Amino acid sequence: MPTYTPPLKEMEFILHDVLKVQQSDTPGYEDLDVDFTGAILEEAGKIARDVLAPLNEVGDREGCVLENGVVRTPKGFQQAFDTLREGGWTGLDCDPEYGGQGMPYVLNAAVGEMQAGANMSLNMYPGLTHGAYSAIHTHGTEAQKSTYLPKMVSCEWTGTMNLTEPHCGTDLGLLRSRAEPQEDGSYKITGTKIFISAGEHDMAENIIHLVLAKIPGGPDGVRGISLFIVPKFLINEDGSLGARNGVSCGNLEEKMGIHGNSTCVMNFDEAEGYLLGAEHKGLRAMFTMMNEARVGVGLQGLSQAYTAYTNAAEYARERLQGRAATGAANPDGPADPLIVHPDIRRALMDQKAFIEAGRAFLLWGASMIDAHTRKGDEAAHGLVSLLTPVMKGFLTDKGFESTVQAQQVFGGSGYIEEQGMSQFVRDARITMIYEGANGVQALDLVGRKLASDGGKHVMAFFELVKGFIKENEGNEALKADFLDPLKAASKDLQAASMFFMQHGMKDPNAALAGSTDFLHLFGHTCLGLMWAQMAKAALEGLESNLPDTRFCENKLVTGRYYMQRLLPETGLRLARITTGATPVMALAAEDF
Amino acid sequence: MPTYTPPLKEMEFILHDVLKVQQSDTPGYEDLDVDFTGAILEEAGKIARDVLAPLNEVGDREGCVLENGVVRTPKGFQQAFDTLREGGWTGLDCDPEYGGQGMPYVLNAAVGEMQAGANMSLNMYPGLTHGAYSAIHTHGTEAQKSTYLPKMVSCEWTGTMNLTEPHCGTDLGLLRSRAEPQEDGSYKITGTKIFISAGEHDMAENIIHLVLAKIPGGPDGVRGISLFIVPKFLINEDGSLGARNGVSCGNLEEKMGIHGNSTCVMNFDEAEGYLLGAEHKGLRAMFTMMNEARVGVGLQGLSQAYTAYTNAAEYARERLQGRAATGAANPDGPADPLIVHPDIRRALMDQKAFIEAGRAFLLWGASMIDAHTRKGDEAAHGLVSLLTPVMKGFLTDKGFESTVQAQQVFGGSGYIEEQGMSQFVRDARITMIYEGANGVQALDLVGRKLASDGGKHVMAFFELVKGFIKENEGNEALKADFLDPLKAASKDLQAASMFFMQHGMKDPNAALAGSTDFLHLFGHTCLGLMWAQMAKAALEGLESNLPDTRFCENKLVTGRYYMQRLLPETGLRLARITTGATPVMALAAEDF
Repeated sequence: MPTYTPPLKEMEFILHDVLKVQQSDTPGYEDLDVDFTGAILEEAGKIARDVLAPLNEVGDREGCVLENGVVRTPKGFQQAFDTLREGGWTGLDCDPEYGGQGMPYVLNAAVGEMQAGANMSLNMYPGLTHGAYSAIHTHGTEAQKSTYLPKMVSCEWTGTMNLTEPHCGTDLGLLRSRAEPQEDGSYKITGTKIFISAGEHDMAENIIHLVLAKIPGGPDGVRGISLFIVPKFLINEDGSLGARNGVSCGNLEEKMGIHGNSTCVMNFDEAEGYLLGAEHKGLRAMFTMMNEARVGVGLQGLSQAYTAYTNAAEYARERLQGRAATGAANPDGPADPLIVHPDIRRALMDQKAFIEAGRAFLLWGASMIDAHTRKGDEAAHGLVSLLTPVMKGFLTDKGFESTVQAQQVFGGSGYIEEQGMSQFVRDARITMIYEGANGVQALDLVGRKLASDGGKHVMAFFELVKGFIKENEGNEALKADFLDPLKAASKDLQAASMFFMQHGMKDPNAALAGSTDFLHLFGHTCLGLMWAQMAKAALEGLESNLPDTRFCENKLVTGRYYMQRLLPETGLRLARITTGATPVMALAAEDF
Repeated sequence: MPTYTPPLKEMEFILHDVLKVQQSDTPGYEDLDVDFTGAILEEAGKIARDVLAPLNEVGDREGCVLENGVVRTPKGFQQAFDTLREGGWTGLDCDPEYGGQGMPYVLNAAVGEMQAGANMSLNMYPGLTHGAYSAIHTHGTEAQKSTYLPKMVSCEWTGTMNLTEPHCGTDLGLLRSRAEPQEDGSYKITGTKIFISAGEHDMAENIIHLVLAKIPGGPDGVRGISLFIVPKFLINEDGSLGARNGVSCGNLEEKMGIHGNSTCVMNFDEAEGYLLGAEHKGLRAMFTMMNEARVGVGLQGLSQAYTAYTNAAEYARERLQGRAATGAANPDGPADPLIVHPDIRRALMDQKAFIEAGRAFLLWGASMIDAHTRKGDEAAHGLVSLLTPVMKGFLTDKGFESTVQAQQVFGGSGYIEEQGMSQFVRDARITMIYEGANGVQALDLVGRKLASDGGKHVMAFFELVKGFIKENEGNEALKADFLDPLKAASKDLQAASMFFMQHGMKDPNAALAGSTDFLHLFGHTCLGLMWAQMAKAALEGLESNLPDTRFCENKLVTGRYYMQRLLPETGLRLARITTGATPVMALAAEDF
């Protein structure tokens, strides 16, 4: 059965040597010294390894069961969830006014990677609650905040997002759920929602659904959508639980993976709901959740890749098959370990080089989210909103691919469920789909984010890359191996952006046909930037004669692998992009 | 639920317009006129669509069940298998001396694609039988042939291949199963085999196991392996079934997919077995099966991609979400169909352009197998043995990727098992693993096939490409769109081969580190060649004013997509290859 190995050293390196969080003037970062982050990450790592990970396979095997309207979660989930609650982990970065710990998001993201990596299904229950917490925290009235947030911070109550309906997923303008205004200011919500993660389960006293619905008489399409708070149990004036609301789970979906999370069909039958935010502005409020959730899903994709990778590396060191082409490496044994074989190493290096830079990318993104929320840095906000579809789309496409490579290392055993590698592949697969399928992320990136504010944010990204290269071009150890390839990738990205500007105005399809390629081109450039920054930090570490020179040397080796073997994909992506709309659009629909 | 649409026109085009089978002097090809192949393919297509495909989801859901040593196959499998048997489909290309139809393999491959595309799990029962048939047909004594083959051609008895043991898969030199010679010339076989597809089931009177084992006192390693025929029921002198042999199914594996096929742990406990071929030459005999099986697995990968693709295309035409960026395409409806969106088309075109050329590649390979077996064409044999790892590895890597893309078109629904798209992904996943994991295919290609006979076969491939380009360079309609990109890809392939020759002698790892990249570079070049040949045939079709000009035009459109957007990957693969061993080998095993 797979095990979980907390990447403590990796995270510490990114926080302190790459991002240098303590040198930041973001409020709250002054507390993030090595001892403090070390203590938090170590404790979170222990829980991930010892409490969450052993239940991952249980969740997959048992799944959730719906009986008489009640959803039973897998054995042990409740106790593990209690461990998270009791340790205050569910409110790590939440507002202290409502019982949160008030820590920066960057630390929460690191902890979140471990929790998701150990048990993605279980982690979704607090994860979705956090999204609902954020939406209420941002858009709720004082009364709503004081009613819901304390219980959601502690996860005594969990939360959900109710968007999708049977006939509409991405295209929310089509949704049919309606909200009839009542005399007391509340609404009666009626409709059916599907694919509702954690929509019903037995691990919380109450479930707070955030539901998109239309108030009759409002504008058509997405402009007429409002967001409502619909608790499973109504809440009495004194805060105690009242009557059961008109919301119930009609069915559980049988899915390819994340069996430990309940994916519900939710029926709203004149359920009592309360407007969250302004009438008809529901989508904006929902996007507070969505953007947060998208970064979180990128993190999930990466987390599955990481756990699958560590288990594959372990297997490759232990399993004896064949002999090294250059002579026996284990002459006294019946065969050499798999890891002597170049193609096995190639697969492991692909994974490792992606994962380490992907983690840096996410934590860098998280630090920009902190810069925005904690000191109002609008430039950071602009950059992170540009990069959110990249974090979601690229890290989950590559994260899934990485789990497939990890499974492949196991040969036939990887296909057997008992071995546990299939679960990483099946669980990671959803990350490419939910919170906006990756094609939608690519559309968001190219069709919306790229040109927003006159292209200011992408220009800021290019400046950042250029600035880093310029600042370090005297560093000979960095130049050929890291700065030059980064410059080439960035040039490809600029050329692609330019192509879109020149052709996209005349024909939007000329840009959209290349949207997924652009997302990958962008993702690789970001990871190239991360590797250049990590390499710089590793070189500094070597110069300062830190005791762990091996860690720094390995960083450089892994980084060079990325720059030499993976980053050149930007050229191929650019070549595809510049073929424009014709190859993609030429065929009639009926000829597919 | 997914449906199966037989690709009749596609197959006819490849057979008659591209391969021009009737113009070939391969014995038996003279019968392959349009009417004959049309009748066979149409009938096979009907069975695939109406009999096999409806059971695909049943097989996945029910799986196989082991009770008291008996494996129960999913409901309906027996009847469907009977339909295949009764129609003579199981012996389509088998020797008429033993009841086969004696048709060329190229036709059998086309039929096989349909059967596997409709129901891969079910098709594995006759598929493995065919492999065992071939091994006995090639290496068996006259008595063995007359005892086993008639029943195996008709699939009254099915066959298996027993290679893998718990501690060894790829590295057969480690195997422990032993065969004790008996006075009557038979052997007592003892050992445990795992991952035995169709090892035990309830659909045949008898099961003929081909088992690798070591005769005590033989040489160490793979040189001491012999192959044995071990029937489930012993066969009396009169051909009737006798006593149950000492072979039984100890367990069924729970797998990620192909649930409808029984994957067995087989226990041999002094089972009576008969030497097939020469003592200690078992591996050679087993490779008769393996090479056939590898082409068959490539075909499976492609077949899953095709079925997933047609269902995704259908969904994209029907599902309404969003509006085309260039203005409503379905203004009277609530939204436009998915297929208006460039990124959905990009995903579908990726699939279509791969599948159509992949099919041509396989049928071309099949025609070379016929050229070898039917007229002793050794050059064809050399080329096809060079290309076998490419057919297996490339078509299954890309086939799997293609099913993932098809699933992605469905958004959230794709993740729900009921929709059926998950099954294609899960079933296709095994094709990258079994019959030699794709890393082993890459190793076989680079470490063995490439340099075999002094590199004669790869030179023949280059000559073939060069010859085609030269022969057609006056064809302006072909040149820029097809011949030039093919030439560039072939140049990349040559440069990679050259790199291996220059560096691989000094350091085998310098070649092996690039083996998977080389396999993909080779695969793309083959598909580029196929597209160039198909484009030529399509242009000829247009010139000759065939009624279906649209089919020919669509071929050209799809081919240009491949040449412009997919084939340029060869450059990236070459760039990776030329980084050599260092990036891949630099890290110590314990640093992964």
